[in-house]
Amino acid sequence: MKVLVINAGSSSLKYQLYNMENETVLASGRVERIGMDSSIVTHEPPGKPDVTQVSEILDHITAVKKVIDMLTHPEHGVVASMEEIDAVGHRIVHGGEVFKNSALVTADVKQEIRKLFDLAPLHNPAHMMGINAVETNMPNVPQVVVFDTAFHQTMPNTSYLYPIPKVLYRRHKVRRYGFHGTSHLYVSQQAAKYLGKPLESLKMISCHIGNGASATAILDGKSFDTSMGMTPLEGLMMGTRSGDLDPAIVPYVMNKEDLTLSEVNSMLNKHSGMLAISGISSDMREIVEAMGEGDANAKLAFDMYTYRVRKYIGAYAAAMNGVDVILFTAGVGENSNVLRKAVCEGISFLGVELDEERNNIRSKEVREISTDASRVKVLVVPTNEELLIARDTYAIVKGESK
Amino acid sequence: MKVLVINAGSSSLKYQLYNMENETVLASGRVERIGMDSSIVTHEPPGKPDVTQVSEILDHITAVKKVIDMLTHPEHGVVASMEEIDAVGHRIVHGGEVFKNSALVTADVKQEIRKLFDLAPLHNPAHMMGINAVETNMPNVPQVVVFDTAFHQTMPNTSYLYPIPKVLYRRHKVRRYGFHGTSHLYVSQQAAKYLGKPLESLKMISCHIGNGASATAILDGKSFDTSMGMTPLEGLMMGTRSGDLDPAIVPYVMNKEDLTLSEVNSMLNKHSGMLAISGISSDMREIVEAMGEGDANAKLAFDMYTYRVRKYIGAYAAAMNGVDVILFTAGVGENSNVLRKAVCEGISFLGVELDEERNNIRSKEVREISTDASRVKVLVVPTNEELLIARDTYAIVKGESK
Repeated sequence: MKVLVINAGSSSLKYQLYNMENETVLASGRVERIGMDSSIVTHEPPGKPDVTQVSEILDHITAVKKVIDMLTHPEHGVVASMEEIDAVGHRIVHGGEVFKNSALVTADVKQEIRKLFDLAPLHNPAHMMGINAVETNMPNVPQVVVFDTAFHQTMPNTSYLYPIPKVLYRRHKVRRYGFHGTSHLYVSQQAAKYLGKPLESLKMISCHIGNGASATAILDGKSFDTSMGMTPLEGLMMGTRSGDLDPAIVPYVMNKEDLTLSEVNSMLNKHSGMLAISGISSDMREIVEAMGEGDANAKLAFDMYTYRVRKYIGAYAAAMNGVDVILFTAGVGENSNVLRKAVCEGISFLGVELDEERNNIRSKEVREISTDASRVKVLVVPTNEELLIARDTYAIVKGESK
Repeated sequence: MKVLVINAGSSSLKYQLYNMENETVLASGRVERIGMDSSIVTHEPPGKPDVTQVSEILDHITAVKKVIDMLTHPEHGVVASMEEIDAVGHRIVHGGEVFKNSALVTADVKQEIRKLFDLAPLHNPAHMMGINAVETNMPNVPQVVVFDTAFHQTMPNTSYLYPIPKVLYRRHKVRRYGFHGTSHLYVSQQAAKYLGKPLESLKMISCHIGNGASATAILDGKSFDTSMGMTPLEGLMMGTRSGDLDPAIVPYVMNKEDLTLSEVNSMLNKHSGMLAISGISSDMREIVEAMGEGDANAKLAFDMYTYRVRKYIGAYAAAMNGVDVILFTAGVGENSNVLRKAVCEGISFLGVELDEERNNIRSKEVREISTDASRVKVLVVPTNEELLIARDTYAIVKGESK
């Protein structure tokens, strides 16, 4: 079975085609700048040269058509015809409280996703365009939706409720949802497999640190608490997001600077975090480089960032009354030995002992970076959300077609 | 030397008169409902019967006059005349970045406090009325101001800066200040004295849990981080305050419920916390009682509350890379054995071992409630902010009058 994984944004669409017999990627690529006359299509079939084309792609329907053209192209294509694609899996940011698992797309499911537009106005409407575009281009192919929030639906109410008037939860569904769930689930499974222990037996803290960043406490193999909240703004300091903040700062700053609701949202989501403190960049590589050159603001941004990661690790160890495994994943978590070192050096009281040599090795495999004597195992686990989406899609479509 | 300690609110004024030779309280009391025609004055001289009077007290000047009348009254008074009062110490909530220590009141100091009205609009203007009222009634008596924020001025910038555009710090002084500083300082000194160790040698986490609540990480005898932020809203869940929240909830709820800035502030400060979740009360005693009767919402409020205290303890242990002493103080912290038990049971991984019998003893003295074997010492330390204000006032006035 071949599964096409799609991550549709408002002006972009990323794709991977998986052969599920051996879980290999047949091709991946992306369409960027959808809606402009000079959209860019990049198609990367392993073993063949990459292809880049510029053309006018005004909507998601045309974008999906272009992807199919690429995949079935006589030269750089990887399948003979569209009929070889058995199912499509979509990444969906917000599944609210309704979606505790991945789901086959039906009229009802689409309606439920539409109801969640309010909670994820930047993401869910774009995902829906992706679903509809596939429906138009491949009307007979089953589609599956896989949610960033679903893994966290196991959180107890002590973790997901906010101490605010309950009417806000009843009326507007204000609660903690958490995100990056597909990643946290995937890497926790990988970590357990690597350690040769049942996932359920391990108290794990998973640090997904990319441009967005979240930490998750995983107990009994389930998400017990997570740092992102109703929206991806809460929790760790990020590239351009503030993370945790005195909530009273929001009305204070709105008043002082005469900001609208959308302006204050934009300030906290796009102009804060490492970018605001360093004054240089939201990219950890550039921060670390500037820090190496003696830039004091870059150093401050890095120190604030890693301090907050450490505090979350401590908080989640307390939440679970202990921790067996701390893992790092995503762009920064997988690649920045400097970040991992700064985080781990400050928490030796937990029984964390970093092996500097192991920490400096680069690899695409799961690896241990703590010493053999370390009471808490520290791992680097490459994430692969697309593979998990493909697996879920495969499992659901196979189940449904029985 | 006799020192009068005053805590002036917008409609109330509390007082204690200290004899600094032996640090005893000669009398304490309060004026309530200032500004109404039926204000209530309660005067409590130890060893004599309490006095309660109802009269019209329309401003703070009259309130201070009433306090002096009480203290010098032939029957229930405790001094022969006003001249016996050598100095007055005021509790001031917000000292901004200017006041790192207590200070003698001068025209300049008053001007600086006025500049901070914006950061503490509910408190600092009322304190200023108290200072002016004393000035009017006792023109020759030196006054000292003691700030709730001063102890926290030692925090490093990684603790006090928020990851938001720096212009907000420069222009509007948006940063973490922290509160309850006088209490955290007093109890940390008491704890070190009890343990017979230098304060500087202990990694301490101080949990001031009253109707307002804050946790402080104390390293090298100094505040290293604290849970309250620019305002007292951030941090732990409280009686009626939410504490930590996804900052994006603020604009979301303002939009959904069409709230003004002042309405959202009021919602998060006065209608959230334990009151919102329990639906019963903001008072821990009532929550615990209802919980005992099987009330599920009270149980949820209690569990959310203690869960958040545990997470802060874990976070601050990580912040200091370890913890030697955890202490509980203030109304709930000193009196609720149920709360202390719930917090400590969840953090045995830190080396915390509660002694249940010791935990159940009530006393007004510093006491240890961990077992002898417990790696982390857990203490209950009665706070006494008034005494610390009296001590600071005494020290400054003595120094100045040399």
